[in-house]
Amino acid sequence: MSAEPSQPSPTMAHLSTCRVTYRMTDQMGVVYYANYLELFEIGRTDLLRATGLTYRQMERDGYLLPVIHAACDYLAPARYDDLLEIRTTIGRLSRVRIDFDYEVRRAEGGELLCRGVTRHAIVGAGGRPRRLDEGWMARLQGTGG
Amino acid sequence: MSAEPSQPSPTMAHLSTCRVTYRMTDQMGVVYYANYLELFEIGRTDLLRATGLTYRQMERDGYLLPVIHAACDYLAPARYDDLLEIRTTIGRLSRVRIDFDYEVRRAEGGELLCRGVTRHAIVGAGGRPRRLDEGWMARLQGTGG
Amino acid sequence: MSAEPSQPSPTMAHLSTCRVTYRMTDQMGVVYYANYLELFEIGRTDLLRATGLTYRQMERDGYLLPVIHAACDYLAPARYDDLLEIRTTIGRLSRVRIDFDYEVRRAEGGELLCRGVTRHAIVGAGGRPRRLDEGWMARLQGTGG
Amino acid sequence: MSAEPSQPSPTMAHLSTCRVTYRMTDQMGVVYYANYLELFEIGRTDLLRATGLTYRQMERDGYLLPVIHAACDYLAPARYDDLLEIRTTIGRLSRVRIDFDYEVRRAEGGELLCRGVTRHAIVGAGGRPRRLDEGWMARLQGTGG
Repeated sequence: MSAEPSQPSPTMAHLSTCRVTYRMTDQMGVVYYANYLELFEIGRTDLLRATGLTYRQMERDGYLLPVIHAACDYLAPARYDDLLEIRTTIGRLSRVRIDFDYEVRRAEGGELLCRGVTRHAIVGAGGRPRRLDEGWMARLQGTGG
Repeated sequence: MSAEPSQPSPTMAHLSTCRVTYRMTDQMGVVYYANYLELFEIGRTDLLRATGLTYRQMERDGYLLPVIHAACDYLAPARYDDLLEIRTTIGRLSRVRIDFDYEVRRAEGGELLCRGVTRHAIVGAGGRPRRLDEGWMARLQGTGG
Repeated sequence: MSAEPSQPSPTMAHLSTCRVTYRMTDQMGVVYYANYLELFEIGRTDLLRATGLTYRQMERDGYLLPVIHAACDYLAPARYDDLLEIRTTIGRLSRVRIDFDYEVRRAEGGELLCRGVTRHAIVGAGGRPRRLDEGWMARLQGTGG
Repeated sequence: MSAEPSQPSPTMAHLSTCRVTYRMTDQMGVVYYANYLELFEIGRTDLLRATGLTYRQMERDGYLLPVIHAACDYLAPARYDDLLEIRTTIGRLSRVRIDFDYEVRRAEGGELLCRGVTRHAIVGAGGRPRRLDEGWMARLQGTGG
C-alpha cells in the first residue's frame, strides 16, 4: 500500500456517453438539474466496470458505497438529443472513503456543461464502516489486476 | 364474502392531489408520459391508506402487488404548476389479482387529462402467488373493520 | 403510396441497449414499472435515427408525435446492472398516427421481460393534426431515401 | 432596500411535506440520491408560493432562476412510505442571485436526513442576467405586500 493512501490515482479515468432523451429534459428545454446525478451514476459505474469488476460484484463482496455528499456546478445547459460525454475520475481514495469527480461535456464541440463530485462511504452489508481490502484498493488505484 | 368476489367495490374510491413540478415536465412543456404512472402509484397508495392500513403494512403481512399490466390514455396535457387530482378506484378484485383504475384531472376546471389502469398480481414474499386473506379482502371491498 | 397505408412495415425494426442503473430500480430490487416507458422512448428515438433522420429533425420539420396511448405487460423483472435490449418496431402507420411496438429482453439469456406499445398522433407545431408528408412516410416505411 | 442586500431573511422559511413512493427508492430500499434535488424543487416552489406569488408568475414577469450550483449532504436514509418534511429558507439574496437552503427530516421523530443548498442566477427570458425588481426583492425578503 502507498504511504499516501488518499492520493488521487491519475490512471483511473473513464469516458461514458449518454444521449439526452425527452425524459431528461424539463419545460425550459434543458436537462433537469437532478438528472446530472444520474449521469454521474453512469459514469462511476462504468469506471468501476473498467477496473475489471462491477459495482454489482462489489456488493457481492459485501461492500456498499452510499453517497454521503454530492455537489454540482452547472455551467451550460444540455439539450434534447445532445450526445453527452461523462468523464469520471477517482478523486480521493482511502480505505473508508472514495470521491469521484465528473465532467459532462457535449460530444459535439466539447463544451463543458457541468462539473461535479460525489463522496461515498465504504460500508459493509449492515451499513457499518468496513475497510476496503487490498485487492479492491489496488484495483481502484489502477495498479491491480 | 360476496358470491361475486371480482365485483368492483363502488365505495372504494380515493382522491389524491399532486402539484406538477419542473421535474415532471419535458421540453414540450407538458408532463412526460411515464410520469403519469408515478401519479397512479400515489393514487393507489393513498387509496390503500384510506382503507386503514398501508401498502407498507401489506408488505409486512407478506403480500406484494407487482404490476403485471399498465395502460394509459392521454387526453390532454398537464402543465407546470397545475394542481392535479388523481381519482383512484378498485376496478376488479379477486384473491389473486387486483385492478386499479385512475382518472387524472386538472383541479382548476376539472378537465380529464388521462385515464389509466394498472393490474397487480397478489404474491407472497418469495414472488409466488398467494391468496389474499379475508381481512384484506374485506378491507379492499370497503366492508372491513 | 401503398393501398394499405396502415400496414406494418416489416423492415423497420431496431435494437437498442440500456444498462440498468440504481436510479431505475426500486426497493423491490427491480426496475420500477414507469421506467419501461423511458426505455420505449430510447427505442423509438433510436429507430427514427436509424431511418436517417432524427426526432429532433422531425420537430424542425414541424411535426410532433405526442403519445395518446401507452400500454405495457410486465412478464419478468429486470434487475440492477442487467444489460437490456429494446427491440422496437413500427406497428401501424398512417398519415395521422403511428404505433410503436416494443420488446424488452435481458441480453444475457434473452428472457422477454416486458412488451409494450405506444400510439402517437402526428401533429403540427400548434398541436393540430398534420398529415405526414411523402418523404417521412417513405422513410418510416423503410422504403425511403 | 436594505444596505446589506445579501443578508439572509430570517422570516422566509417554509415547510413542505412529501410521502416517499416506490418510484423514489432504489434497490437499497432508500431514497435515491438524485431524488433529494426533486424535494428541494418542491421546497423552493412552495416557499415562493408562500410569498403570495408563484414561480409560474415569476416566469410570466420575465424572470428565470436557472440552477448554477447544487450540493447535498446525506446524513441518514429516507425509506419507503416515510413522510418527509422539507424546510426551505432563502439563504443569500441579491438582485442577481438567490440561494436556497434545505433540510429534509423524517416527520416521525424529526431525524435530519439531508441538508442541501441550491444557487440560482436571476436571468431574463433570453437567458441574460436581469436584476430583480423592488417588488420581487421585497417579497423574497419577507417584507413585501
